[in-house]
Amino acid sequence: MELILNKKPKRPTIIEGFPGVGFVGTIAAEYMLNHLNAKSIGYLYDPAVPPIAIIHGKETRRLLEIFHAQKENLVFIHAISGVSGLEWEVANEIIELAKILNAKELISLEGVTSPDEAATSRIFIRSNDFKTEKEFLKLGAEKLKEGAVTGVTGALMLSGDHVNSTFLFAETHSRMPDSRASAELIRMLDLYLNLKIDPKPLVKQAEEFENKIKDMIKLGIESQQSHKKDEIQRINYLG
Amino acid sequence: MELILNKKPKRPTIIEGFPGVGFVGTIAAEYMLNHLNAKSIGYLYDPAVPPIAIIHGKETRRLLEIFHAQKENLVFIHAISGVSGLEWEVANEIIELAKILNAKELISLEGVTSPDEAATSRIFIRSNDFKTEKEFLKLGAEKLKEGAVTGVTGALMLSGDHVNSTFLFAETHSRMPDSRASAELIRMLDLYLNLKIDPKPLVKQAEEFENKIKDMIKLGIESQQSHKKDEIQRINYLG
Amino acid sequence: MELILNKKPKRPTIIEGFPGVGFVGTIAAEYMLNHLNAKSIGYLYDPAVPPIAIIHGKETRRLLEIFHAQKENLVFIHAISGVSGLEWEVANEIIELAKILNAKELISLEGVTSPDEAATSRIFIRSNDFKTEKEFLKLGAEKLKEGAVTGVTGALMLSGDHVNSTFLFAETHSRMPDSRASAELIRMLDLYLNLKIDPKPLVKQAEEFENKIKDMIKLGIESQQSHKKDEIQRINYLG
Amino acid sequence: MELILNKKPKRPTIIEGFPGVGFVGTIAAEYMLNHLNAKSIGYLYDPAVPPIAIIHGKETRRLLEIFHAQKENLVFIHAISGVSGLEWEVANEIIELAKILNAKELISLEGVTSPDEAATSRIFIRSNDFKTEKEFLKLGAEKLKEGAVTGVTGALMLSGDHVNSTFLFAETHSRMPDSRASAELIRMLDLYLNLKIDPKPLVKQAEEFENKIKDMIKLGIESQQSHKKDEIQRINYLG
Amino acid sequence: MELILNKKPKRPTIIEGFPGVGFVGTIAAEYMLNHLNAKSIGYLYDPAVPPIAIIHGKETRRLLEIFHAQKENLVFIHAISGVSGLEWEVANEIIELAKILNAKELISLEGVTSPDEAATSRIFIRSNDFKTEKEFLKLGAEKLKEGAVTGVTGALMLSGDHVNSTFLFAETHSRMPDSRASAELIRMLDLYLNLKIDPKPLVKQAEEFENKIKDMIKLGIESQQSHKKDEIQRINYLG
Repeated sequence: MELILNKKPKRPTIIEGFPGVGFVGTIAAEYMLNHLNAKSIGYLYDPAVPPIAIIHGKETRRLLEIFHAQKENLVFIHAISGVSGLEWEVANEIIELAKILNAKELISLEGVTSPDEAATSRIFIRSNDFKTEKEFLKLGAEKLKEGAVTGVTGALMLSGDHVNSTFLFAETHSRMPDSRASAELIRMLDLYLNLKIDPKPLVKQAEEFENKIKDMIKLGIESQQSHKKDEIQRINYLG
Repeated sequence: MELILNKKPKRPTIIEGFPGVGFVGTIAAEYMLNHLNAKSIGYLYDPAVPPIAIIHGKETRRLLEIFHAQKENLVFIHAISGVSGLEWEVANEIIELAKILNAKELISLEGVTSPDEAATSRIFIRSNDFKTEKEFLKLGAEKLKEGAVTGVTGALMLSGDHVNSTFLFAETHSRMPDSRASAELIRMLDLYLNLKIDPKPLVKQAEEFENKIKDMIKLGIESQQSHKKDEIQRINYLG
Repeated sequence: MELILNKKPKRPTIIEGFPGVGFVGTIAAEYMLNHLNAKSIGYLYDPAVPPIAIIHGKETRRLLEIFHAQKENLVFIHAISGVSGLEWEVANEIIELAKILNAKELISLEGVTSPDEAATSRIFIRSNDFKTEKEFLKLGAEKLKEGAVTGVTGALMLSGDHVNSTFLFAETHSRMPDSRASAELIRMLDLYLNLKIDPKPLVKQAEEFENKIKDMIKLGIESQQSHKKDEIQRINYLG
Repeated sequence: MELILNKKPKRPTIIEGFPGVGFVGTIAAEYMLNHLNAKSIGYLYDPAVPPIAIIHGKETRRLLEIFHAQKENLVFIHAISGVSGLEWEVANEIIELAKILNAKELISLEGVTSPDEAATSRIFIRSNDFKTEKEFLKLGAEKLKEGAVTGVTGALMLSGDHVNSTFLFAETHSRMPDSRASAELIRMLDLYLNLKIDPKPLVKQAEEFENKIKDMIKLGIESQQSHKKDEIQRINYLG
Repeated sequence: MELILNKKPKRPTIIEGFPGVGFVGTIAAEYMLNHLNAKSIGYLYDPAVPPIAIIHGKETRRLLEIFHAQKENLVFIHAISGVSGLEWEVANEIIELAKILNAKELISLEGVTSPDEAATSRIFIRSNDFKTEKEFLKLGAEKLKEGAVTGVTGALMLSGDHVNSTFLFAETHSRMPDSRASAELIRMLDLYLNLKIDPKPLVKQAEEFENKIKDMIKLGIESQQSHKKDEIQRINYLG
């Protein structure tokens, strides 16, 4: 796997969102990078990642593209699909990216299944940085005490000790894309990062993106290989 | 993957049509190269491409054969099957071909699914050449603003920056071969390239070829490997 | 893949019959080599070819064994199974064999599906030798003008330019072993090669062999790998 | 496969529990290491082991993590999943671990299916150490006289001659996680190792862990690869 | 694949029994080596062979273990499972074993399907040693004149010319383990080798072993890989 970088912003906060329970990481990252008008600064390349060109207005994006929101100095890396079996490698490249950019911190967005049918999703947190954790707890997040996390986020939890890493989990009740849980993630990130995102269009737009992913799932975006990953991804749960 | 070229026409327009939604690229390219009486000038070889000999009158063609219509100086490369997992490589070889022939431009033909049940297919366009785009818009094409493109065409969208590249998408409502959508593609290309193809036999002949592909699908032309590709191909959609 | 030859007859006619539509090539080649009492002169070896010992009277034969009928100077190479994914390699070795033996000509036996429910199978021909083609047309064969040919025969059609190559296709209506179509192939070859095979026991014996293959199919002779090939093989059709 | 060790306790007893019939080894090892408050001292790493981060209170554990209970000088290595196809390698690394730590003995925990529907599970034993075997027989274990053992435990039985190795099998009637059978294993180990574990909360806590594993199974923790392993694992039986 | 030998008996008769139609080779070899109290003298090792430890009284056996009955100077090599895709290699190692031990002869035990529903199984023979064949014909065996033999036995038939090789086939009507057909094989071998095995407990004990194999099949002893082999194995039939 190759890391191609056309620009190297300094001391950014890196936000990653890969497919997991409820696709909440993917949805939240996609929403934020579009909302903040982030621009491509590179991508991860591996011949095993299928060639999917995603058309977004004037841009043509690829899986594992890296975006930068200049004003907020946020770097985003996310994917809708295509990283099955490459989780360790993607995680390694993200840590490499954090080192190259001397990142301030790395924030991972994930879902976690819950039997509770509460109206709003709780947000759970794990962090290797005491101060960050405290701040998120103050904002309403709860500590995640039991669970199993897979995929790129799982790999990052097992490899990312040398970087300030925070993992946020939005409670979700479904394996299908869940834009409401993603919205809760964005709300909390908005407060933490002081982005002042207008929360009104958020749920609506997240729902649109949720529908798009649902379409892609229906249309078979997941290759045979990805099914395998899916099976593993589904085990993110609340202990 | 190897590129074998027996003849090197100069400054041609290259037209590619690979299996995608509605097989419109494959059908349109096949129709045009037969109609223009294009002759084989080489092929792409890879042992992973299955040995399928396609008998066409006196000719014996192979998958990934390259054809040249001398009068119109058009080069065609297309396939009915067999490129699953080789999309990045096929795209690389097509770009290599464009460089070797110093191609004027590269036109990719694809389908895009649409929920609209309109009688005629709209044609959508993406181009990295402003003048070409403008011309197609004048001919009635619309800009493609959202969507995900896979397969060889997806790989070309992500790799083809150094070549004048135009991507045409015919709206289709079905995953089965769609000759009517292909006919719309051909009509627009006819205008753009000033080919003066008599449009009357077009739909009828395209339908015949559509039936042939349907037969091949029924007879199981798609190997296990290709199924995988199919699953990915299906996600070409209108955002 | 290795070519092991214990004897090198000079200037033979090589006849190949590999599994395809109706197994007509396999059945016809097996019948002829048994009828002419051809003797083993070698075989193709590849560890990917499964170890199947075929007991035939006092002989123990293997897949891809090569036989020689001395009086008629005919060399046979055929298989019932086991060449899936090895088609290009088998074809290369057959061409190599033709060169080593300085073969007079190479005759491929195949089936081609047809919707016609005629009582007798028509025989279709493709040849790169004008004289041979003319002779077969005189004997009642018709030119094959449209179709797709896969498997070893497909690979030979795409690779065999340097050898005098003739491809005979017997019309068949079924994907199951078809001894009657094979019988038509043998009748025409008998005339062309002037073998004077008594035609009476032919259909009966071919039927017996057909039943044997059917048994083998029922008993699961086709490995998983072969299924893949089957799917591809089925596309031999009349355009 | 790599063995990473951050600490090297001397002369420990090593206890392994890998997924098998009734998951009894996994459940028993997990219960004991939690109960004894064992701390991570390293892990086995292989890119083929999926990245699953298991959150347990303040700790983040991985598959194939190695734990040490200091007071009792017990080393635990266990997994819930992810070792399919790696059984020989995992077994080799466990033997390597035993050598590096100069382990006193190696105790493997496994399940064995039985048609008997008795209320409590019998414990069966195999040992290459006469004294250990005698002691366990005195504690109520029975000799295992017939059966087939697969997975990591099977590999250890075939490779572990140079280490004092004892294999304990808890009778189970189900392929689903069986905490009651695990509890019997723990009771016997408690006596043998003189751990003085309070037996009262045992069954209850084991049941909770059993439910957790059942959830993970329901949620699809087993990847395609693991299914293969499962099929093999199931053959542990009483001869 | 590696051949590990701890003892090298001189001039033994080697008897092999691998899974095939009715598992008759496996059952017969297992019965005989247990009955004659044969001792392990080595094994074949390959990481692709799954780690299955078979507990038999005080012994722990593995797949592809090699046994020696000293008094009768018989060497046994057999397997219940796990040789799928390794047939050529296993056969090569058996021939290597025969050379190292300077074996007197190699006797392969196999099943062959038959539509006849006769009460007792006929035994068929192929041998490259005229004297041995004559002897078995005198004992009631019949020559096998048509058929296809796969698996390790098939590979041995195609590779074993340099060793005195005899192949015995017991007629069976089922693909499930068939202890009665195995008993017929043992009866004939008993006469040929002059073992004076008491025939009375034979059928009963063979049935017990048959049930054990049936259990293992039910419990899923066959891995995915083995299914492939099974499909091929089933084609052993009477021509």
